[in-house]
Amino acid sequence: MSRQPRRELRLNTFQMAAPSHNWAGLWKHPRDNQAQYHQLRYWADMARTAERGLLDGIFIADVFGIYDVYAGNADAALVAGAQSPQLDPTMLISAMALVTEHIGFGVTSSLSNDHPFSFTRRFGTLDHLTNGRLGWNIVTGYLESGARGLGRDSLRDHDERYEVAEDFMAAIYQLWEGSWEAGAAVRDKDTGMFTHPERVHAVAHDGPYYRVHGRALAEPSPQRTPLLYQAGSSARGQQFAGRHAEACFINGPTPAAAAKSVKALRESARNAGRDPYDLLTLLGATVIVAPTTSEAQDLRDDYRRYLDSAGQLALVSGWTGMDLSQLGLDDVLPFAKTNAIQSTVEHLTRNTPQPPKVRDLLDFSPVGARAPVFIGSPVDVADQMAHWVAESDIDGFNLVRTVMPESLDAIVDLLIPELQNRGMFKTRYAQGTLREKLFPAGGKLLPASHPGAAYRR
Amino acid sequence: MSRQPRRELRLNTFQMAAPSHNWAGLWKHPRDNQAQYHQLRYWADMARTAERGLLDGIFIADVFGIYDVYAGNADAALVAGAQSPQLDPTMLISAMALVTEHIGFGVTSSLSNDHPFSFTRRFGTLDHLTNGRLGWNIVTGYLESGARGLGRDSLRDHDERYEVAEDFMAAIYQLWEGSWEAGAAVRDKDTGMFTHPERVHAVAHDGPYYRVHGRALAEPSPQRTPLLYQAGSSARGQQFAGRHAEACFINGPTPAAAAKSVKALRESARNAGRDPYDLLTLLGATVIVAPTTSEAQDLRDDYRRYLDSAGQLALVSGWTGMDLSQLGLDDVLPFAKTNAIQSTVEHLTRNTPQPPKVRDLLDFSPVGARAPVFIGSPVDVADQMAHWVAESDIDGFNLVRTVMPESLDAIVDLLIPELQNRGMFKTRYAQGTLREKLFPAGGKLLPASHPGAAYRR
Repeated sequence: MSRQPRRELRLNTFQMAAPSHNWAGLWKHPRDNQAQYHQLRYWADMARTAERGLLDGIFIADVFGIYDVYAGNADAALVAGAQSPQLDPTMLISAMALVTEHIGFGVTSSLSNDHPFSFTRRFGTLDHLTNGRLGWNIVTGYLESGARGLGRDSLRDHDERYEVAEDFMAAIYQLWEGSWEAGAAVRDKDTGMFTHPERVHAVAHDGPYYRVHGRALAEPSPQRTPLLYQAGSSARGQQFAGRHAEACFINGPTPAAAAKSVKALRESARNAGRDPYDLLTLLGATVIVAPTTSEAQDLRDDYRRYLDSAGQLALVSGWTGMDLSQLGLDDVLPFAKTNAIQSTVEHLTRNTPQPPKVRDLLDFSPVGARAPVFIGSPVDVADQMAHWVAESDIDGFNLVRTVMPESLDAIVDLLIPELQNRGMFKTRYAQGTLREKLFPAGGKLLPASHPGAAYRR
Repeated sequence: MSRQPRRELRLNTFQMAAPSHNWAGLWKHPRDNQAQYHQLRYWADMARTAERGLLDGIFIADVFGIYDVYAGNADAALVAGAQSPQLDPTMLISAMALVTEHIGFGVTSSLSNDHPFSFTRRFGTLDHLTNGRLGWNIVTGYLESGARGLGRDSLRDHDERYEVAEDFMAAIYQLWEGSWEAGAAVRDKDTGMFTHPERVHAVAHDGPYYRVHGRALAEPSPQRTPLLYQAGSSARGQQFAGRHAEACFINGPTPAAAAKSVKALRESARNAGRDPYDLLTLLGATVIVAPTTSEAQDLRDDYRRYLDSAGQLALVSGWTGMDLSQLGLDDVLPFAKTNAIQSTVEHLTRNTPQPPKVRDLLDFSPVGARAPVFIGSPVDVADQMAHWVAESDIDGFNLVRTVMPESLDAIVDLLIPELQNRGMFKTRYAQGTLREKLFPAGGKLLPASHPGAAYRR
């Protein structure tokens, strides 16, 4: 596989509408404002800062469920505010769009909660309101608690979730790409024609899981299909990503582990008839940056005191489907085949030099994060980032929040200028939609090689 | 029934995320900007204007489907932009909340598209982000096209739609009112407890239509249950409203027709053990106001030239379920029992002095509007409003948009000062949530007499 010419580094801030995202308990830090996740101001201020730093996007996680695998109950997650309580991230977007002009929005939403006919209208609305800055992070859900909340007896099996997803995608491509021809909404005040009726077509989809009969309710948005993110890294997930994803969020505790995922994803895209570099890969990463190395280490030590151990284990138990309360702190994490996030199980037990002990999960460490942790001065962090990019062929990072807003401020004020000085990061936004910004050689719409484009008339 | 002491007049601007709402074709007017319904700026500017006028709320319609009853196809609705294309109104709210402080948001959303577990998180999120300014307009859908889009063979029968709604309400009250105790989310940085786990309770709902098993995912929002609007005026709809609604949107082409609905609604509330005045009634109304009577009439004549006849009949055909293309312009509208909006059929055929001809629907007339049309100087319009309030015991009006933004500007700049001068309208907003603003004697939460309150711990 030949490396493409120098690619732009892509950076998102990784957020969640909850008091804690992937580091449980940091809302307790005296300077932290994550407990205000339910106030518009948290999101508007954060969006302005992220755009000031020219970040490519605000990537918002969503889990739709509660972490109740640990000790068989949700107590630890509730106490730690570990992805609980949570709000619906789609509702945050229009406010952030109003106070920004360029930054993209990657919104996680499980298709298991939705129907293609209402989903396409909702996400199409957001692509309109953001003027084409929307991405959808396709997930299928991995918490039994979410399935039970929706009245189901249990979560579907891991691989069947992707069969459901394939059917969902086939339906939404027809609605977004095939129902309204280009120029159907003519908006002609002189002739009195808003929409040309012969240019709007009814969809007739009778799939194994979804039926849709009718025209898309919304007119096409700037990107039609929002930029497609995906986050599954299992074998089945990689196959799905190779077909559908334009950007993939991955984890990986070592450059080699990340490189393995990236290679598999690019192969999968190639096997689906696409350019392997039409699939961006974004690695989770935690950054603790300060003016000097020792200040950053002090900051890490300060932050570390606020991590919530039970909350952290509740998160890992939810990701892996393994109840870690049954293990001692010095026990080694076992491999298991579970119905949760298979790639996390593999990263933690097989893709590390040696499988970690439970206590290793309770620190700002690559195993605790499932992904790199960059701590140091701007020079230190930029060096480490460059190393990971070179070793793993990733396109960029989803920067996991720690203490807010200062961790994002530090990235914007300290790290970004260092990356810019090295020529590693852009100094202004490109014009156009999110898709055009991330793929400068392409257009607003899905490229011709993407399966969704085949539904376009 | 004794009238309460002088009540405050309530006024909402009535909007829809579509090029035309209830008057098809006005987007063609040279000064009109409704064709920009898909741009954030339309909504942010409109919200600022409405709040400048101290309006109580922005009430946003939604229909989730296309009007394809007329001539058996959607051509007329598409050409006229008659409630098509359309966007998801929930997505507009956070942007409008960011640029306003007081105004409420009444968001229409059909429960037929949703599950209580995801719905409560979504609308709870909006009540958080608006700081308690959210209302939900409960509808069940009346367009077959919406049901087919969702993969169903047909719309449920009219009365069964309310059985589904009763089950939906029972589930959401448990999630919004019963799952999280007051003070469960303690946010205590010192003790490290975000949520007290013993104060969060799992819901177990096994209803005839919906199952929910689990804790609400979101913490309670300022109002817990958003203010409940409802818009069905059939006998079954009134029974539902009497139990659940805190504000009811009605139509009615004469004061007597409106009074009949208001009386039935208040009786229904009384029968459900509630204060009849805990149910506000808001009548649809079209206002064309200008500095003088003759200027207003000129404006009416100007606007009228842009109405789209086929589009208007497509709307009425959808509301009534009767294909009006089968009638001539001089035919009288027949009564029919349909599966669409039963109250509209009754208003147009039985609640008017004489049933209208089809051509009567094609003008700014009470039958065309299903509701009053106030045209004149500020004094004229205020006189007419006062007359309707006195005759029908309504609490206020949902002001249907005509040419935007000027029709809203005229209401704010001309009509509101006249109403204020008469002491008919407030001169500043009350403090608190939408519920507290509309019911100054009550609190943030559903009153004890409301069935939803019974689920609170």
